Amino acid sequence: MARFPLPPGSTIGVLGGGQLGRMMAMAAGRLGLKTAVLDPDAGGPAAQVSAVEIVGAYDDETALRRLAQAADVITFEFENVPADTVAALQAAGADVAPGARALAVAQDRVEEKSFLNAAGIETVAFAPIASEQDLIQALRHMATPALLKTRREGYDGKGQAWIESHEAGPAAWKAIGAKPAILEARADFRREVSVIAARGRDGEVATYPLCENHHEGGILRRTTAPARASRKLADHAEGIAHRILDGLDYVGVLAVEMFELDDGRLLVNEIAPRVHNSGHWTLDGCQVDQFEQHVRAIAGWPLGPTAAIARTEMINLIGSDVDQWPKLAAELDARLWLYGKAEARPGRKMGHVNRLTEL
Amino acid sequence: MARFPLPPGSTIGVLGGGQLGRMMAMAAGRLGLKTAVLDPDAGGPAAQVSAVEIVGAYDDETALRRLAQAADVITFEFENVPADTVAALQAAGADVAPGARALAVAQDRVEEKSFLNAAGIETVAFAPIASEQDLIQALRHMATPALLKTRREGYDGKGQAWIESHEAGPAAWKAIGAKPAILEARADFRREVSVIAARGRDGEVATYPLCENHHEGGILRRTTAPARASRKLADHAEGIAHRILDGLDYVGVLAVEMFELDDGRLLVNEIAPRVHNSGHWTLDGCQVDQFEQHVRAIAGWPLGPTAAIARTEMINLIGSDVDQWPKLAAELDARLWLYGKAEARPGRKMGHVNRLTEL
Repeated sequence: MARFPLPPGSTIGVLGGGQLGRMMAMAAGRLGLKTAVLDPDAGGPAAQVSAVEIVGAYDDETALRRLAQAADVITFEFENVPADTVAALQAAGADVAPGARALAVAQDRVEEKSFLNAAGIETVAFAPIASEQDLIQALRHMATPALLKTRREGYDGKGQAWIESHEAGPAAWKAIGAKPAILEARADFRREVSVIAARGRDGEVATYPLCENHHEGGILRRTTAPARASRKLADHAEGIAHRILDGLDYVGVLAVEMFELDDGRLLVNEIAPRVHNSGHWTLDGCQVDQFEQHVRAIAGWPLGPTAAIARTEMINLIGSDVDQWPKLAAELDARLWLYGKAEARPGRKMGHVNRLTEL
Repeated sequence: MARFPLPPGSTIGVLGGGQLGRMMAMAAGRLGLKTAVLDPDAGGPAAQVSAVEIVGAYDDETALRRLAQAADVITFEFENVPADTVAALQAAGADVAPGARALAVAQDRVEEKSFLNAAGIETVAFAPIASEQDLIQALRHMATPALLKTRREGYDGKGQAWIESHEAGPAAWKAIGAKPAILEARADFRREVSVIAARGRDGEVATYPLCENHHEGGILRRTTAPARASRKLADHAEGIAHRILDGLDYVGVLAVEMFELDDGRLLVNEIAPRVHNSGHWTLDGCQVDQFEQHVRAIAGWPLGPTAAIARTEMINLIGSDVDQWPKLAAELDARLWLYGKAEARPGRKMGHVNRLTEL
């Protein structure tokens, strides 16, 4: 097994070769670390800036063994890593961060909310749903509209259906594919906020300023940070992130998405056990961004500073938005990040822009 | 030939795979551009973060042709690119930036000073030396100590010898290998400063704030920027850089090293037609660093802003200095850049650190 802190020249293995892996690889590069990336597709965003590229499925044991041999520590850019994959990597002698427990909790929406509630962290009311009968039963105790989501997988609004009336349960059950699910009460929230936080191998925690997020069609469109918030609210949000990190004995960067209610309460909506789109503002708004922070944490290095150095508005460039690049490149206070994706399909995150103003 | 501006997804070809190429590749990556690097050694600093690696000598025609085919524009991380190499690249249809004229001027110390003087820019007094006889002759008209340098090549203090007395000429001539040389009068300077500046394909010029440089043993040790300087001095230095860029019809980033004399005059010591060690502070001290600026310029993109966002002290990590990385990684206001070099040989630039304070 690896000895920490990993010295310069060590290799970070990344499962998944998209934009999150790409920005991790560039952060690792700044610190003199190499990256080995495993992805089913060749030449993707992360592979373009990585020392080692392994093309293979996430359950391809030969590919996983090669990754484990190439890397001193392995991390991932998405949370739906099969438990078998982590087991295969660990069997091949790899150190995986964050660990199996964080993945298990974040992969299953019922486990996630149960973990949060047990840690004294508020969420919306919810019920596990294993069958259409469960759903009909649960709807008797929950006001509509309510949200039905698959327990596992689904992102950017996929795998979920709003139930507007009690009679609409069976249709929603069919719409999400009749899979194990969770029924969630609707949160009547004022805004969506998130906290990006990191925990080192020594248990040190560092939290970035609160982000305010705006979604469109289930996809993050815009983040502003530091969000305008009372000290009390910011402290409360930070405290929640801290409790989650400690509760999962977490190593790396984690994102906590929350609803702020009119009465000032914060309900946690979702945990992402990885770097997160709502943390892209840190690339230009902080001295050490979330990607370098994640690399520092998993490599056993000390965490970096998290204070904002600029007020930042992050706008995702989705699909053909990326065609605006010549205009964005000419904007003096806009820093452009493009992901090296060949095709600008609708709904595809092609890049983002950080607009900076003085704090 | 390439059409400018190069769209995202295009490839920047880099001759030379060291740390300058590495930081260029990471800057290109941010903008959604790929990098193809040609270097005689495999797996070096730039190759670790590049999409395409071509291993070959700089005069290997097959390798050059491959680079020309892979890249939409070609640049370099050192000025001693043989003219034949540029010709071979251009013959293969490549666009090379900066161009052959900038290289020719910067490669030959006599050409360089002659170009500067012709442009009305001051340098130390100098004499071209083709033989021991020339040197003896020239020493009759120049006070000692004087500096004998080869006309071509030599960097970090290599290929040069101080002549302390008129009798010491022949020994110095031997010491530099009896090669075509330049004899330079000693500048009695207060400090060494430099300007990093860029010129776009449309002739737009952008200049970074003045840097103050400290050398040890002929190697840059420390840069502080923005240097404490009067508006008049800063404007004068900027004006010199502007005239050089226009005079060479330059495309890309260029560094101008200058001596500041006690009477406030600026003598240009050297031009580097590339990104430069004294510009590494811009990586953390500016919104757009010299590497992104260079990529923007050669790709035909608009230039980025050059104002400082922090006062920055850049310290080179030379040889075993790099062993301090655990301490430097823990310094909150120190941003660490390591180059991915395997062996910390004495005199080898292994990385640098930027220490930031408020402007």
